[in-house]
Amino acid sequence: MWQLHQFPLCPFSRKLRLQMGEKSVAYELIRENPWEGNDAFLQLNPAGRTPVLHDPGRRVALCDSQAICEFLEETVERNPLLGGSAVARAEVRRLIALFDENFYTDVTQPLLHERMKKRLFLRQPPDSRVLRDTMRMAHGHLDYIDWLVDTRPWIGGATLSLADLACAAQISVADYLGGIDWKGHEQARGWYAVMKSRPSFRPLLSEKMEGLPPPPHYAKVDS
Amino acid sequence: MWQLHQFPLCPFSRKLRLQMGEKSVAYELIRENPWEGNDAFLQLNPAGRTPVLHDPGRRVALCDSQAICEFLEETVERNPLLGGSAVARAEVRRLIALFDENFYTDVTQPLLHERMKKRLFLRQPPDSRVLRDTMRMAHGHLDYIDWLVDTRPWIGGATLSLADLACAAQISVADYLGGIDWKGHEQARGWYAVMKSRPSFRPLLSEKMEGLPPPPHYAKVDS
Repeated sequence: MWQLHQFPLCPFSRKLRLQMGEKSVAYELIRENPWEGNDAFLQLNPAGRTPVLHDPGRRVALCDSQAICEFLEETVERNPLLGGSAVARAEVRRLIALFDENFYTDVTQPLLHERMKKRLFLRQPPDSRVLRDTMRMAHGHLDYIDWLVDTRPWIGGATLSLADLACAAQISVADYLGGIDWKGHEQARGWYAVMKSRPSFRPLLSEKMEGLPPPPHYAKVDS
Repeated sequence: MWQLHQFPLCPFSRKLRLQMGEKSVAYELIRENPWEGNDAFLQLNPAGRTPVLHDPGRRVALCDSQAICEFLEETVERNPLLGGSAVARAEVRRLIALFDENFYTDVTQPLLHERMKKRLFLRQPPDSRVLRDTMRMAHGHLDYIDWLVDTRPWIGGATLSLADLACAAQISVADYLGGIDWKGHEQARGWYAVMKSRPSFRPLLSEKMEGLPPPPHYAKVDS
Protein backbone atom coordinates (compact mmCIF):
# COMPACT_ATOMS: atom_id res chain seq x y z
CA MET A 1 0.00 0.00 0.00
CA TRP A 2 1.07 3.57 -0.63
CA GLN A 3 2.46 5.50 2.30
CA LEU A 4 1.91 9.26 2.12
CA HIS A 5 4.54 11.25 4.02
CA GLN A 6 2.92 14.52 5.10
CA PHE A 7 1.90 16.81 7.95
CA PRO A 8 -1.72 17.91 8.58
CA LEU A 9 -1.33 21.49 7.31
CA CYS A 10 0.77 20.76 4.19
CA PRO A 11 -1.38 22.17 1.35
CA PHE A 12 0.39 20.08 -1.31
CA SER A 13 -0.24 16.86 0.61
CA ARG A 14 -3.89 17.96 0.95
CA LYS A 15 -4.16 18.39 -2.84
CA LEU A 16 -2.90 14.84 -3.24
CA ARG A 17 -5.18 13.44 -0.51
CA LEU A 18 -8.18 15.03 -2.23
CA GLN A 19 -7.12 13.45 -5.53
CA MET A 20 -6.59 10.01 -3.94
CA GLY A 21 -9.96 10.36 -2.21
CA GLU A 22 -11.73 11.25 -5.49
CA LYS A 23 -10.03 8.31 -7.25
CA SER A 24 -10.49 5.86 -4.32
CA VAL A 25 -6.76 5.11 -4.04
CA ALA A 26 -5.89 3.56 -0.65
CA TYR A 27 -2.97 4.93 1.39
CA GLU A 28 -1.74 5.25 4.93
CA LEU A 29 -0.44 8.47 6.43
CA ILE A 30 3.12 8.83 7.70
CA ARG A 31 3.73 11.95 9.75
CA GLU A 32 6.66 14.04 8.60
CA ASN A 33 7.91 17.44 9.78
CA PRO A 34 9.96 18.43 6.70
CA TRP A 35 11.44 21.50 8.45
CA GLU A 36 13.34 19.16 10.79
CA GLY A 37 15.42 17.94 7.82
CA ASN A 38 15.83 14.39 9.10
CA ASP A 39 18.15 12.16 7.08
CA ALA A 40 15.71 9.32 6.36
CA PHE A 41 13.27 11.79 4.79
CA LEU A 42 16.01 13.53 2.77
CA GLN A 43 16.97 10.09 1.45
CA LEU A 44 13.41 9.72 0.15
CA ASN A 45 13.27 13.28 -1.22
CA PRO A 46 16.47 15.33 -1.62
CA ALA A 47 14.26 18.41 -2.11
CA GLY A 48 13.19 17.99 1.54
CA ARG A 49 9.50 18.69 0.85
CA THR A 50 6.24 16.92 1.57
CA PRO A 51 4.39 15.09 0.09
CA VAL A 52 6.28 11.92 -0.78
CA LEU A 53 4.27 8.91 -1.95
CA HIS A 54 6.21 5.79 -1.07
CA ASP A 55 5.60 2.13 -1.77
CA PRO A 56 8.33 0.31 0.20
CA GLY A 57 7.32 -3.05 -1.28
CA ARG A 58 7.84 -1.90 -4.86
CA ARG A 59 10.71 0.41 -3.84
CA VAL A 60 9.01 3.36 -5.53
CA ALA A 61 9.23 6.82 -3.93
CA LEU A 62 7.46 9.59 -5.82
CA CYS A 63 8.26 13.21 -4.96
CA ASP A 64 6.82 16.62 -5.85
CA SER A 65 3.07 16.97 -5.51
CA GLN A 66 2.43 17.80 -9.16
CA ALA A 67 4.62 14.93 -10.43
CA ILE A 68 2.60 12.62 -8.15
CA CYS A 69 -0.74 14.04 -9.34
CA GLU A 70 0.29 13.47 -12.97
CA PHE A 71 1.42 9.92 -12.10
CA LEU A 72 -1.95 9.11 -10.50
CA GLU A 73 -3.84 10.56 -13.49
CA GLU A 74 -1.73 8.38 -15.82
CA THR A 75 -2.07 5.18 -13.81
CA VAL A 76 -5.55 5.35 -12.20
CA GLU A 77 -8.30 5.71 -14.81
CA ARG A 78 -11.18 6.12 -12.32
CA ASN A 79 -12.62 9.68 -12.11
CA PRO A 80 -10.18 11.56 -14.37
CA LEU A 81 -9.29 15.01 -13.02
CA LEU A 82 -7.15 16.20 -15.93
CA GLY A 83 -9.19 15.57 -19.05
CA GLY A 84 -10.32 17.31 -22.21
CA SER A 85 -8.25 18.82 -25.03
CA ALA A 86 -4.57 19.73 -24.71
CA VAL A 87 -5.58 23.41 -24.35
CA ALA A 88 -8.09 22.50 -21.60
CA ARG A 89 -5.42 20.50 -19.77
CA ALA A 90 -2.97 23.42 -20.11
CA GLU A 91 -5.60 25.66 -18.50
CA VAL A 92 -6.01 23.24 -15.56
CA ARG A 93 -2.22 23.05 -15.15
CA ARG A 94 -1.89 26.86 -15.33
CA LEU A 95 -4.38 27.20 -12.47
CA ILE A 96 -2.72 24.47 -10.39
CA ALA A 97 0.55 26.42 -10.68
CA LEU A 98 -1.26 29.67 -9.79
CA PHE A 99 -2.53 28.12 -6.54
CA ASP A 100 0.55 26.00 -5.76
CA GLU A 101 2.94 28.89 -6.36
CA ASN A 102 1.24 32.30 -6.16
CA PHE A 103 -1.50 31.59 -3.58
CA TYR A 104 0.97 29.55 -1.54
CA THR A 105 3.71 32.22 -1.60
CA ASP A 106 1.30 35.12 -0.99
CA VAL A 107 -1.02 33.55 1.59
CA THR A 108 -0.46 29.98 2.81
CA GLN A 109 3.31 30.08 3.35
CA PRO A 110 3.34 33.32 5.42
CA LEU A 111 0.33 32.07 7.44
CA LEU A 112 2.12 28.77 8.14
CA HIS A 113 5.16 30.74 9.29
CA GLU A 114 3.31 33.31 11.42
CA ARG A 115 0.57 31.11 12.87
CA MET A 116 2.04 27.60 12.94
CA LYS A 117 5.85 27.72 13.11
CA LYS A 118 6.05 30.79 15.39
CA ARG A 119 3.48 29.34 17.79
CA LEU A 120 4.60 25.72 17.89
CA PHE A 121 8.36 25.88 17.35
CA LEU A 122 9.77 29.41 17.57
CA ARG A 123 7.57 30.49 20.54
CA GLN A 124 7.15 33.98 19.08
CA PRO A 125 4.02 36.08 18.55
CA PRO A 126 2.86 36.52 14.93
CA ASP A 127 3.78 39.73 13.10
CA SER A 128 0.50 41.64 12.71
CA ARG A 129 1.80 43.55 9.67
CA VAL A 130 2.50 40.27 7.84
CA LEU A 131 -0.95 38.94 8.81
CA ARG A 132 -2.60 42.11 7.40
CA ASP A 133 -0.63 41.80 4.14
CA THR A 134 -1.61 38.13 3.91
CA MET A 135 -5.30 38.97 4.35
CA ARG A 136 -5.04 41.62 1.61
CA MET A 137 -3.35 39.18 -0.76
CA ALA A 138 -6.00 36.55 0.04
CA HIS A 139 -8.74 39.00 -0.98
CA GLY A 140 -7.01 39.49 -4.34
CA HIS A 141 -6.90 35.73 -4.94
CA LEU A 142 -10.53 35.31 -3.81
CA ASP A 143 -11.54 38.03 -6.30
CA TYR A 144 -9.97 35.95 -9.06
CA ILE A 145 -11.65 32.77 -7.80
CA ASP A 146 -15.01 34.65 -7.77
CA TRP A 147 -14.40 35.52 -11.42
CA LEU A 148 -13.46 31.94 -12.35
CA VAL A 149 -16.55 30.52 -10.64
CA ASP A 150 -18.70 33.16 -12.37
CA THR A 151 -17.47 32.26 -15.85
CA ARG A 152 -17.29 28.43 -15.82
CA PRO A 153 -18.92 25.48 -13.99
CA TRP A 154 -15.74 24.55 -12.10
CA ILE A 155 -12.46 26.36 -11.38
CA GLY A 156 -10.57 24.76 -14.28
CA GLY A 157 -13.39 24.43 -16.83
CA ALA A 158 -16.42 22.25 -17.53
CA THR A 159 -15.70 19.50 -14.99
CA LEU A 160 -14.21 19.00 -11.55
CA SER A 161 -10.42 18.92 -12.01
CA LEU A 162 -7.11 19.06 -10.20
CA ALA A 163 -7.47 22.87 -10.35
CA ASP A 164 -10.42 22.68 -7.90
CA LEU A 165 -8.43 20.38 -5.62
CA ALA A 166 -5.30 22.56 -5.69
CA CYS A 167 -7.37 25.67 -4.91
CA ALA A 168 -9.41 24.02 -2.15
CA ALA A 169 -6.26 22.57 -0.58
CA GLN A 170 -4.60 26.01 -0.25
CA ILE A 171 -7.81 27.65 0.99
CA SER A 172 -8.42 24.91 3.56
CA VAL A 173 -5.01 25.48 5.18
CA ALA A 174 -5.42 29.27 5.09
CA ASP A 175 -8.91 28.90 6.61
CA TYR A 176 -7.59 26.58 9.35
CA LEU A 177 -5.10 29.35 10.21
CA GLY A 178 -7.79 32.06 10.31
CA GLY A 179 -6.60 33.74 7.11
CA ILE A 180 -9.80 33.64 5.00
CA ASP A 181 -12.46 36.36 5.20
CA TRP A 182 -15.33 35.44 2.85
CA LYS A 183 -16.99 38.87 3.01
CA GLY A 184 -17.60 40.04 -0.56
CA HIS A 185 -16.74 36.64 -2.04
CA GLU A 186 -20.09 34.87 -2.29
CA GLN A 187 -19.21 32.98 -5.50
CA ALA A 188 -15.95 31.62 -4.10
CA ARG A 189 -17.67 30.82 -0.80
CA GLY A 190 -20.42 28.86 -2.58
CA TRP A 191 -17.89 26.88 -4.59
CA TYR A 192 -15.84 26.12 -1.44
CA ALA A 193 -18.97 24.93 0.42
CA VAL A 194 -19.58 22.44 -2.42
CA MET A 195 -15.96 21.26 -2.21
CA LYS A 196 -16.15 20.88 1.59
CA SER A 197 -19.23 18.66 1.27
CA ARG A 198 -17.45 16.11 -0.94
CA PRO A 199 -16.55 12.82 0.79
CA SER A 200 -12.89 13.29 -0.26
CA PHE A 201 -12.75 16.40 1.96
CA ARG A 202 -14.01 14.80 5.19
CA PRO A 203 -10.70 13.30 6.39
CA LEU A 204 -9.00 16.69 6.03
CA LEU A 205 -11.65 18.59 7.96
CA SER A 206 -11.52 16.25 10.94
CA GLU A 207 -7.72 16.24 11.21
CA LYS A 208 -5.97 18.65 13.57
CA MET A 209 -2.45 19.97 13.99
CA GLU A 210 -1.51 19.26 17.61
CA GLY A 211 -1.37 22.39 19.78
CA LEU A 212 -3.09 24.47 17.12
CA PRO A 213 -6.88 24.13 17.10
CA PRO A 214 -8.78 25.44 14.04
CA PRO A 215 -11.45 28.16 14.36
CA PRO A 216 -14.99 26.84 15.09
CA HIS A 217 -16.32 27.40 11.53
CA TYR A 218 -13.44 25.52 9.87
CA ALA A 219 -14.95 22.02 9.76
CA LYS A 220 -18.59 23.08 9.29
CA VAL A 221 -19.79 22.12 5.84
CA ASP A 222 -22.40 24.90 5.66
CA SER A 223 -20.16 27.85 6.58
CA MET B 1 2.99 31.53 -35.28
CA TRP B 2 3.62 31.25 -31.55
CA GLN B 3 4.83 34.34 -29.76
CA LEU B 4 6.96 33.66 -26.69
CA HIS B 5 6.81 36.44 -24.11
CA GLN B 6 10.11 36.40 -22.18
CA PHE B 7 13.27 38.23 -21.17
CA PRO B 8 16.81 36.96 -21.95
CA LEU B 9 17.66 35.77 -18.42
CA CYS B 10 14.32 34.12 -17.54
CA PRO B 11 15.33 30.49 -16.78
CA PHE B 12 11.78 29.18 -17.32
CA SER B 13 11.58 30.79 -20.77
CA ARG B 14 14.98 29.23 -21.51
CA LYS B 15 13.68 25.76 -20.57
CA LEU B 16 10.84 26.28 -23.04
CA ARG B 17 13.11 27.64 -25.80
CA LEU B 18 15.35 24.59 -25.43
CA GLN B 19 12.29 22.33 -25.74
CA MET B 20 10.96 24.21 -28.78
CA GLY B 21 14.44 24.06 -30.32
CA GLU B 22 14.71 20.29 -29.75
CA LYS B 23 11.22 19.77 -31.21
CA SER B 24 11.70 22.28 -34.10
CA VAL B 25 8.68 24.39 -33.12
CA ALA B 26 8.81 27.86 -34.70
CA TYR B 27 8.19 30.96 -32.55
CA GLU B 28 9.04 34.63 -32.34
CA LEU B 29 10.31 36.34 -29.22
CA ILE B 30 8.38 39.14 -27.54
CA ARG B 31 10.37 41.03 -24.91
CA GLU B 32 8.65 41.28 -21.55
CA ASN B 33 9.90 42.68 -18.22
CA PRO B 34 7.45 40.93 -15.88
CA TRP B 35 8.62 42.95 -12.84
CA GLU B 36 7.12 46.07 -14.46
CA GLY B 37 3.64 44.56 -14.02
CA ASN B 38 2.16 46.13 -17.19
CA ASP B 39 -1.56 45.63 -17.72
CA ALA B 40 -1.43 44.02 -21.18
CA PHE B 41 0.87 41.31 -19.83
CA LEU B 42 -1.26 40.75 -16.70
CA GLN B 43 -4.25 40.29 -19.04
CA LEU B 44 -2.34 37.46 -20.74
CA ASN B 45 -1.13 35.96 -17.44
CA PRO B 46 -2.72 36.99 -14.12
CA ALA B 47 0.22 35.31 -12.36
CA GLY B 48 2.48 38.01 -13.87
CA ARG B 49 5.24 35.57 -14.80
CA THR B 50 7.17 34.75 -17.95
CA PRO B 51 7.01 32.69 -20.12
CA VAL B 52 3.67 33.06 -21.87
CA LEU B 53 3.18 31.27 -25.19
CA HIS B 54 0.62 33.19 -27.21
CA ASP B 55 -1.01 32.54 -30.56
CA PRO B 56 -3.04 35.70 -31.25
CA GLY B 57 -4.57 34.15 -34.40
CA ARG B 58 -6.02 31.19 -32.50
CA ARG B 59 -6.61 33.31 -29.38
CA VAL B 60 -4.68 30.82 -27.26
CA ALA B 61 -2.45 32.07 -24.42
CA LEU B 62 -0.64 29.39 -22.45
CA CYS B 63 0.89 30.28 -19.07
CA ASP B 64 3.22 28.56 -16.60
CA SER B 65 6.37 27.02 -18.06
CA GLN B 66 5.59 23.47 -16.95
CA ALA B 67 1.99 23.63 -18.24
CA ILE B 68 3.41 24.80 -21.59
CA CYS B 69 6.06 22.04 -21.64
CA GLU B 70 3.36 19.42 -21.01
CA PHE B 71 1.19 20.97 -23.76
CA LEU B 72 4.05 20.78 -26.27
CA GLU B 73 4.81 17.16 -25.33
CA GLU B 74 1.14 16.30 -25.84
CA THR B 75 0.77 18.12 -29.18
CA VAL B 76 4.19 17.81 -30.89
CA GLU B 77 5.24 14.19 -31.34
CA ARG B 78 8.71 14.92 -32.72
CA ASN B 79 11.60 14.19 -30.32
CA PRO B 80 9.68 13.28 -27.15
CA LEU B 81 11.28 14.63 -23.99
CA LEU B 82 8.92 13.05 -21.46
CA GLY B 83 8.73 9.37 -22.37
CA GLY B 84 9.00 5.94 -20.78
CA SER B 85 6.90 4.40 -18.02
CA ALA B 86 4.72 6.37 -15.61
CA VAL B 87 7.41 5.95 -12.92
CA ALA B 88 10.10 7.20 -15.35
CA ARG B 89 7.97 10.23 -16.23
CA ALA B 90 7.39 10.92 -12.51
CA GLU B 91 11.17 10.91 -12.02
CA VAL B 92 11.65 13.43 -14.85
CA ARG B 93 8.90 15.64 -13.40
CA ARG B 94 10.41 15.37 -9.87
CA LEU B 95 13.73 16.65 -11.22
CA ILE B 96 12.11 19.44 -13.24
CA ALA B 97 10.47 20.65 -10.01
CA LEU B 98 13.80 20.33 -8.16
CA PHE B 99 15.50 22.65 -10.66
CA ASP B 100 12.51 24.97 -11.27
CA GLU B 101 11.85 25.38 -7.55
CA ASN B 102 14.86 24.51 -5.37
CA PHE B 103 17.73 25.49 -7.70
CA TYR B 104 15.82 28.62 -8.74
CA THR B 105 15.03 29.68 -5.16
CA ASP B 106 18.50 28.85 -3.82
CA VAL B 107 20.65 30.10 -6.71
CA THR B 108 19.07 31.68 -9.80
CA GLN B 109 16.55 33.95 -8.11
CA PRO B 110 19.02 35.55 -5.63
CA LEU B 111 21.57 35.97 -8.45
CA LEU B 112 18.98 37.67 -10.65
CA HIS B 113 18.16 40.00 -7.76
CA GLU B 114 21.74 40.79 -6.75
CA ARG B 115 23.40 40.90 -10.16
CA MET B 116 20.64 41.89 -12.60
CA LYS B 117 17.92 43.87 -10.80
CA LYS B 118 20.27 45.74 -8.46
CA ARG B 119 22.60 46.71 -11.32
CA LEU B 120 20.04 47.58 -13.97
CA PHE B 121 17.06 48.92 -12.03
CA LEU B 122 17.81 49.53 -8.36
CA ARG B 123 21.33 50.99 -8.94
CA GLN B 124 22.65 49.27 -5.83
CA PRO B 125 25.78 47.16 -5.31
CA PRO B 126 25.21 43.41 -4.79
CA ASP B 127 25.25 42.02 -1.23
CA SER B 128 28.46 39.98 -0.97
CA ARG B 129 27.01 37.81 1.82
CA VAL B 130 24.09 36.78 -0.38
CA LEU B 131 26.48 36.05 -3.28
CA ARG B 132 28.60 33.83 -1.01
CA ASP B 133 25.50 31.95 0.20
CA THR B 134 24.36 31.51 -3.39
CA MET B 135 27.73 30.05 -4.42
CA ARG B 136 27.56 27.62 -1.46
CA MET B 137 24.05 26.52 -2.43
CA ALA B 138 25.13 26.14 -6.08
CA HIS B 139 27.91 23.75 -4.97
CA GLY B 140 25.32 21.62 -3.16
CA HIS B 141 23.16 21.41 -6.27
CA LEU B 142 26.18 20.67 -8.49
CA ASP B 143 27.13 17.82 -6.12
CA TYR B 144 23.69 16.31 -6.72
CA ILE B 145 24.00 16.82 -10.50
CA ASP B 146 27.43 15.09 -10.38
CA TRP B 147 25.73 12.15 -8.68
CA LEU B 148 22.88 12.03 -11.20
CA VAL B 149 25.29 12.13 -14.17
CA ASP B 150 27.39 9.40 -12.52
CA THR B 151 24.47 7.02 -12.10
CA ARG B 152 22.53 7.40 -15.38
CA PRO B 153 23.13 8.41 -19.01
CA TRP B 154 21.16 11.67 -18.75
CA ILE B 155 19.89 13.75 -15.81
CA GLY B 156 16.39 12.24 -15.84
CA GLY B 157 17.19 8.68 -16.94
CA ALA B 158 18.10 6.74 -20.08
CA THR B 159 17.37 9.50 -22.61
CA LEU B 160 17.57 13.26 -23.00
CA SER B 161 14.48 14.69 -21.28
CA LEU B 162 12.88 17.86 -19.98
CA ALA B 163 14.93 17.31 -16.79
CA ASP B 164 18.15 18.03 -18.74
CA LEU B 165 16.59 21.14 -20.27
CA ALA B 166 15.27 22.44 -16.93
CA CYS B 167 18.67 21.89 -15.29
CA ALA B 168 20.65 23.44 -18.16
CA ALA B 169 18.30 26.44 -18.28
CA GLN B 170 18.87 27.28 -14.60
CA ILE B 171 22.64 26.70 -14.83
CA SER B 172 22.93 28.85 -17.97
CA VAL B 173 21.38 31.86 -16.22
CA ALA B 174 23.48 31.32 -13.07
CA ASP B 175 26.61 30.98 -15.27
CA TYR B 176 25.75 34.17 -17.18
CA LEU B 177 25.60 35.94 -13.80
CA GLY B 178 28.97 34.54 -12.66
CA GLY B 179 27.44 32.20 -10.08
CA ILE B 180 28.82 28.83 -11.21
CA ASP B 181 32.22 27.52 -10.08
CA TRP B 182 32.86 24.15 -11.76
CA LYS B 183 35.83 23.27 -9.53
CA GLY B 184 35.25 19.77 -8.16
CA HIS B 185 32.28 19.12 -10.46
CA GLU B 186 33.83 17.41 -13.48
CA GLN B 187 30.81 15.17 -14.15
CA ALA B 188 28.34 18.06 -14.13
CA ARG B 189 30.73 20.17 -16.20
CA GLY B 190 31.07 17.42 -18.84
CA TRP B 191 27.29 17.02 -19.05
CA TYR B 192 26.80 20.80 -19.35
CA ALA B 193 29.43 21.00 -22.16
CA VAL B 194 27.40 18.40 -24.09
CA MET B 195 24.19 20.42 -23.51
CA LYS B 196 25.88 23.66 -24.64
CA SER B 197 26.99 22.04 -27.90
CA ARG B 198 23.41 21.17 -28.93
CA PRO B 199 21.93 23.34 -31.70
CA SER B 200 18.95 24.14 -29.45
CA PHE B 201 21.35 25.94 -27.07
CA ARG B 202 22.99 28.28 -29.61
CA PRO B 203 20.33 31.03 -29.65
CA LEU B 204 20.51 31.29 -25.84
CA LEU B 205 24.30 31.56 -25.74
CA SER B 206 24.42 34.39 -28.27
CA GLU B 207 21.70 36.46 -26.61
CA LYS B 208 22.60 39.19 -24.14
CA MET B 209 20.77 41.17 -21.48
CA GLU B 210 21.37 44.84 -22.34
CA GLY B 211 23.76 46.59 -19.94
CA LEU B 212 24.83 43.28 -18.40
CA PRO B 213 27.52 41.45 -20.43
CA PRO B 214 28.20 37.77 -19.57
CA PRO B 215 31.66 36.57 -18.46
CA PRO B 216 34.02 35.59 -21.35
CA HIS B 217 33.67 31.80 -20.81
CA TYR B 218 29.85 31.87 -20.86
CA ALA B 219 29.24 31.29 -24.58
CA LYS B 220 32.27 29.04 -25.22
CA VAL B 221 31.14 25.51 -25.95
CA ASP B 222 34.34 23.91 -24.65
CA SER B 223 34.51 25.61 -21.23
